[in-house]
Amino acid sequence: MFTEKRSISPDPTRALENDDFDDEIRMWVFDEQVELEGKKESLVTIINTKHENVKYLPGIALPENIVAVPDLKEAVTGADILIFVLPHQFLPKVLEQIKNCVREDAIAVSLIKGGFDREIMKDGSSKIVLCSDIIREALPQLRTVAVLMGGNLAIEVAKDQFCEATLGCHDSKSAVVLQNLFDSDMFSVNHVEDVQGVEMCGAVKNIIAIGAGFCDGLGLGTNSKAAVLRIGLEEMRKIIKYIYPAVPDQTFFESCGVGDLIATCFGGRNRRCAEAFAKAGGKKSWEDIESELLGGQKLQGTLTLLEIVDAIGDAPIKKQVPLCAAIYRCSFKGEPLSEFVKNLNIKRMHPGHAYLVNPYEVKE
Amino acid sequence: MFTEKRSISPDPTRALENDDFDDEIRMWVFDEQVELEGKKESLVTIINTKHENVKYLPGIALPENIVAVPDLKEAVTGADILIFVLPHQFLPKVLEQIKNCVREDAIAVSLIKGGFDREIMKDGSSKIVLCSDIIREALPQLRTVAVLMGGNLAIEVAKDQFCEATLGCHDSKSAVVLQNLFDSDMFSVNHVEDVQGVEMCGAVKNIIAIGAGFCDGLGLGTNSKAAVLRIGLEEMRKIIKYIYPAVPDQTFFESCGVGDLIATCFGGRNRRCAEAFAKAGGKKSWEDIESELLGGQKLQGTLTLLEIVDAIGDAPIKKQVPLCAAIYRCSFKGEPLSEFVKNLNIKRMHPGHAYLVNPYEVKE
Repeated sequence: MFTEKRSISPDPTRALENDDFDDEIRMWVFDEQVELEGKKESLVTIINTKHENVKYLPGIALPENIVAVPDLKEAVTGADILIFVLPHQFLPKVLEQIKNCVREDAIAVSLIKGGFDREIMKDGSSKIVLCSDIIREALPQLRTVAVLMGGNLAIEVAKDQFCEATLGCHDSKSAVVLQNLFDSDMFSVNHVEDVQGVEMCGAVKNIIAIGAGFCDGLGLGTNSKAAVLRIGLEEMRKIIKYIYPAVPDQTFFESCGVGDLIATCFGGRNRRCAEAFAKAGGKKSWEDIESELLGGQKLQGTLTLLEIVDAIGDAPIKKQVPLCAAIYRCSFKGEPLSEFVKNLNIKRMHPGHAYLVNPYEVKE
Repeated sequence: MFTEKRSISPDPTRALENDDFDDEIRMWVFDEQVELEGKKESLVTIINTKHENVKYLPGIALPENIVAVPDLKEAVTGADILIFVLPHQFLPKVLEQIKNCVREDAIAVSLIKGGFDREIMKDGSSKIVLCSDIIREALPQLRTVAVLMGGNLAIEVAKDQFCEATLGCHDSKSAVVLQNLFDSDMFSVNHVEDVQGVEMCGAVKNIIAIGAGFCDGLGLGTNSKAAVLRIGLEEMRKIIKYIYPAVPDQTFFESCGVGDLIATCFGGRNRRCAEAFAKAGGKKSWEDIESELLGGQKLQGTLTLLEIVDAIGDAPIKKQVPLCAAIYRCSFKGEPLSEFVKNLNIKRMHPGHAYLVNPYEVKE
């Protein structure tokens, strides 16, 4: 989704009511034919005439100042603010197409959650590459690349239910503009000067949501689930600070941290799929569950878990994240779900314990 | 609940399997006649013969090494470790009775959650008095007074579902003993060197649970509830650090902090009563809801809220806790529940806004 001249918000009336922003919000839409009242029509045409995205956000009236634009370059050209909201695997191709249209000194903000890549270095080690990194590298003319993350299940945001988000932005002038644009009574935006921590939280919390779904599938109560969330927050902090030591603790108290963790562990699709996985006793494949429950959307927690396990490699931290290790063993190593919470009390495991020698292997 | 010679645990088999502790656990039980199979019997006798507390924990088999003792002094005499688990209003009377029986250098640990007193000083200001303070003052012969708090809904602990707790203890030698005693595979205990922060969390989280219950009663979704919990955690941190500046941030990442907050906001009785209050549009009194839903137990969040509002008084912090102020207005000032989340985005309120002049008054 891209916009022209500083103008979009989850509450698009913000652009109308605020003279700092253009009224019109341009939204790039990949045009496709969708069935409406028995005949095929262009999604772009439907959005611009009926003001509803009947395919991806049915039942929600879009304000008329949102204009769907099928041509990517046209949507981007002249925009002061670019807002990226698309599945992360499409990002490189989109960036390649727009790199010559993006205005000098424009601000980019990424709402892409849960996706990152890894680059293998010459010495065999690897480096995490965030969506904000990819955008920054592809578009060096940008003033800044910010991220906006939080406990924001889309349908509830669309219904204008109160929620919060965290704006991670290093450039304080851009942060003022973006906060002014996004912040509204029902969408409360906090700014922190941390991009990497905010973006990483949006990915790593999906791993913890798998654990929360296991609790639900196993019929465990509130205590156990609360414990899994709390341990999960601690492990998110350890993992993210291991990769990015400069991330401050405060990031984890923000909406992108504990807020999004709670929303995802009680309402998200990773939780839902993991619940189904546990109910099937681990006998159903993740692929089958994904296609049964997500209707084309991708399950991100399991992929992120594999990436993180790989990124941690043999570093000592692998022995300090027993919850992630237990989720990994149950998800990919055939460990019975009944074992799931039994090994979380890592303090009780003496140094020779199998899980401490190799936490990713199932104990014989 | 008191024990003799270092011996009790939510998993009482810990005392049996560990040679550091006596096998027998003495539990003081206020004896009463309860109806069982059509006739009245002594609760103490039932516990010691049927090994079940049919009145307060029905359906749960108690290990036979737990012995109910109706005489308070007998239960306490000779004990190396005293574990306090009783409604906080009974504490002073109990302490008065036992003060001469408590062994020199015994360790006390309080599991009393959610209750504190306030002492009015000569200059009119007030001071919070925690249960651990009351115990310490009444029994100066104790080696230390620790607290054990966390996301521990009783029935789930009794069913041996995995949970966590935080041991707040300043004396490191006692902490080792207590951790050894309480920590088990399914009851994971973390130690922090902070007593006041841990105990305060156990009280203040009940205020936030009122807000969480309002969300449920209003039919709000996951985003809003996650936001209320997150803002609540921040306000807990502000309030507790205002009263006890030495409390470290880490306390809020422990089970007593974010863990108990999540458990209470999804499973506790404060949440349940607040949900009923919101569903009745604020038209039913708290007293009526309490007697309808809690069957004799007390609702603590509303009392704690009144105490905290009073303790904060006119200090500047009163303008920095908009969630607690909104819960207060809806709970006690007749503010319509429909207003509940509308004023949480405090950054958007300019300094002259009514809620910032007096956040406890309903705007005209």
